[in-house]
Amino acid sequence: MKQSETRNLTMMMDLYEMTMANGYFNDQDKDTRVAFDVFYRSNPDGGGFAIFAGLEQILEYIENLHFDEEDIAYFRSLNIFTEDFLAYLKDFKFSGDIYAFKEGTIMYPNEPIITVVAPLIDAQLIETALLAQVNHQSLIATKTRRIVSAAEGRAVSDFGARRAHNMDAAVYGARAAYIGGAVGTATVLAGQMFDIPVSGTMAHSWVMYYKDEFEAFKHYAENYPDGTVLLVDTYDVIGSGIPNAIRVAKEVLEPMGKRLKGIRIDSGDLAYLSKKAYQMLEAEGFGDAIISASSDLDEYLIDSLKTQGAKINSWGVGTNLITSGDWPAFGGVYKLAAAKDKEDAEFTPKIKLSENSEKVTNPGNKTIFRIYDKESGKIRADLICLADETFDESKDMIIFDPIETWKKTKIKGGTYTLRELLVPIFQKGACVYTSPSVMEIRDICTREKDTLWEESKRLVNPHEVYVDLSDKLYHIKSDLLEEMSMKALGEQ
Amino acid sequence: MKQSETRNLTMMMDLYEMTMANGYFNDQDKDTRVAFDVFYRSNPDGGGFAIFAGLEQILEYIENLHFDEEDIAYFRSLNIFTEDFLAYLKDFKFSGDIYAFKEGTIMYPNEPIITVVAPLIDAQLIETALLAQVNHQSLIATKTRRIVSAAEGRAVSDFGARRAHNMDAAVYGARAAYIGGAVGTATVLAGQMFDIPVSGTMAHSWVMYYKDEFEAFKHYAENYPDGTVLLVDTYDVIGSGIPNAIRVAKEVLEPMGKRLKGIRIDSGDLAYLSKKAYQMLEAEGFGDAIISASSDLDEYLIDSLKTQGAKINSWGVGTNLITSGDWPAFGGVYKLAAAKDKEDAEFTPKIKLSENSEKVTNPGNKTIFRIYDKESGKIRADLICLADETFDESKDMIIFDPIETWKKTKIKGGTYTLRELLVPIFQKGACVYTSPSVMEIRDICTREKDTLWEESKRLVNPHEVYVDLSDKLYHIKSDLLEEMSMKALGEQ
Repeated sequence: MKQSETRNLTMMMDLYEMTMANGYFNDQDKDTRVAFDVFYRSNPDGGGFAIFAGLEQILEYIENLHFDEEDIAYFRSLNIFTEDFLAYLKDFKFSGDIYAFKEGTIMYPNEPIITVVAPLIDAQLIETALLAQVNHQSLIATKTRRIVSAAEGRAVSDFGARRAHNMDAAVYGARAAYIGGAVGTATVLAGQMFDIPVSGTMAHSWVMYYKDEFEAFKHYAENYPDGTVLLVDTYDVIGSGIPNAIRVAKEVLEPMGKRLKGIRIDSGDLAYLSKKAYQMLEAEGFGDAIISASSDLDEYLIDSLKTQGAKINSWGVGTNLITSGDWPAFGGVYKLAAAKDKEDAEFTPKIKLSENSEKVTNPGNKTIFRIYDKESGKIRADLICLADETFDESKDMIIFDPIETWKKTKIKGGTYTLRELLVPIFQKGACVYTSPSVMEIRDICTREKDTLWEESKRLVNPHEVYVDLSDKLYHIKSDLLEEMSMKALGEQ
Repeated sequence: MKQSETRNLTMMMDLYEMTMANGYFNDQDKDTRVAFDVFYRSNPDGGGFAIFAGLEQILEYIENLHFDEEDIAYFRSLNIFTEDFLAYLKDFKFSGDIYAFKEGTIMYPNEPIITVVAPLIDAQLIETALLAQVNHQSLIATKTRRIVSAAEGRAVSDFGARRAHNMDAAVYGARAAYIGGAVGTATVLAGQMFDIPVSGTMAHSWVMYYKDEFEAFKHYAENYPDGTVLLVDTYDVIGSGIPNAIRVAKEVLEPMGKRLKGIRIDSGDLAYLSKKAYQMLEAEGFGDAIISASSDLDEYLIDSLKTQGAKINSWGVGTNLITSGDWPAFGGVYKLAAAKDKEDAEFTPKIKLSENSEKVTNPGNKTIFRIYDKESGKIRADLICLADETFDESKDMIIFDPIETWKKTKIKGGTYTLRELLVPIFQKGACVYTSPSVMEIRDICTREKDTLWEESKRLVNPHEVYVDLSDKLYHIKSDLLEEMSMKALGEQ
């Protein structure tokens, strides 16, 4: 935890959060209670689901939230804020409620994965930090889940630090990758901070440094007789790398009573080279050596190599894991859903229209229930409803498509169970949640897989799970849309 | 600077750097002097060049480099390092030399942009941190340069924090974007740390919060009469957004003696909406209002909108700038180039072969000269040579293609000037370089543009600049390749 303890990320915001806060403050609106939702609109890579991650860091951020003297001096220097507002910032602390998915949980588009119910300014100021954290970690956890799924049970390790978008991306990316199913990381700082298993053997520079490849392998084996994994592609995998590895296994390791642990191939035709390498190793009695590969891999390439019968049983994935190469942004957004006119009033639902019906928001202070098939434990649908709604699992339930609202689904009473996915994290500014260890979160994520139908797990064209509205929320949304469109007609 | 002062990023490394270091230490090789190069193999997005960025943060990292007690305890817990090595780490400080391009400088594939000439362990331990920093900031600076170039002189602002790969990516990404030509950022922490101009007005939540759009705009104008930029797409740009903006300009701002500064469109058909918005504003005497757009933009979309005659004069670019959306990784690598057998010996050049001839490294302790056309000041080629080579600008020079070695180019004496691009940053572990301010770096980057031929600036299919070898280096490389291939034949 050495990094996060000392970092105050309060200033990690977009300036508009501050210009709005100053406006609300000056208009005496700062304490109006509002509800904001974090949600996203489509699964990365066209996948069937995404993995929620980043909550532990949000928790640390909210707890550290405060403005230092130098922060206030900085804002003063911009000449757009009132002195009263700047004075108010001095004692600012987050005082609202936050509800969120547990990390490692499967999530779907358009459902709130975090809700913030807080005074207006408190809710507005945390927008960017929340989004950046959730967007980044969920992106990498989701991508890793795809890669791990393509590897079908073989180890996937994060090798991506050098291609990460700076240090946090390497460290929190390694964390998210581990949650998503990687067995470990090469990034030492991530191992140290989160107790993630670390691995690492040699670079090409090690092989190039010694007078020849055999000498390099020999020195490595002498230093690490219990973990001799040799990088065999510096000069010529088949011509020299594998023969030298076998020689070291026989001449250096065997006399010490040790076995060659494995080899790593970092370039070339991985299907051909791995099969050929396996044959050569097997012929000399080293068929048990790990054959590890690491060369611009992603889920599609791993899947293709598997199909080609590549003899690879350990995958080091760098660039495409740590940047989610072909889908490098998770589009989480933060939208106002409701506001109270008076402290003790009911929430007034708020809606954002759009020419694109997919982008119309779901109004109201909401929560989410996951509907499981009672018999199989698989996910039948997710239900978005108002925060105070309750349901009786023995009764039939009708749920409504949030866009194509003529589509309704009836779920028969007694055939389903419900789980509320949003759990309290902060209440009146106090943290009420203890984040599990990263290892526990990884276990949660692994168990979540068991709630998916096979059709949802496909890398390409997966089955889409319904995220529907409750009867009550459906009617609120319809009425609001009707009202807005009448108003719009009147205004034109 | 509040962030970087307190952060020790020593542990930001791949574990293999440590396993190699431990091996070198145990083999008594730790002080062997070596030369490593940082270089990359292709320009992002198929562009004609890239922009070097990230040096200031490397400087801070190297100066802070040290292992804390808890770091050493962590390594001990892995049970793979010798106690002697762990004891050595306690007093470890970087003691080598580093040469680098100045930030903001144009760079090309395959040339060393940083060289590290240092004791073996010192050079090996800094690999990942150097690469992550340069890869990230150069990626974003280069992407921003492309976007700015598409915007043809109109302002481009970084709006990307929420989609960045965590906090560092937002902050150092904003820094790199500014270097690459953005006029500013929305990210407050970046503004505070680097004195980059910040901007920000309102989110959709502001508009949704008030009872109607006019009310929301009115409140904003009253709070910010000198900077009223109104977000017009919450409900209906043409139907209500623009009419309400005009009404506020007339009813709220004009009585205060103020002008509407501008509007922002964040969704929909930007070509149509911006033209229509301009007509409506112009008809009411507000043709001078800024029309700002921000909706999943990148260089291609901006270019297309310009072609369609969109009336947009300010661009807010988020996701695709801060993640370099369609090319999210800059492939900088760190390769051993030479080693000394004895302290006072000559460097022995080292080479890495590959089945792919593009991936064969350039051996030797090297430097880079940029060859300018004497008359126009434009770049003719870059020359990779040995660090101690000198050249006489009055004499003819023959330079060699590093891959297709039969290709030679003769540059006539008296027609060119030379500039050495690698400047000393550290000498014997002491920093000898003062990093310019981010604003000065941005100016350097702007001036660099003037050294490019028009053909190199194209977004698509740009002219490729030669990066060639000196006569001496060419022969060293050929001899080494010959030697390696003979050896390989002998080994099979």
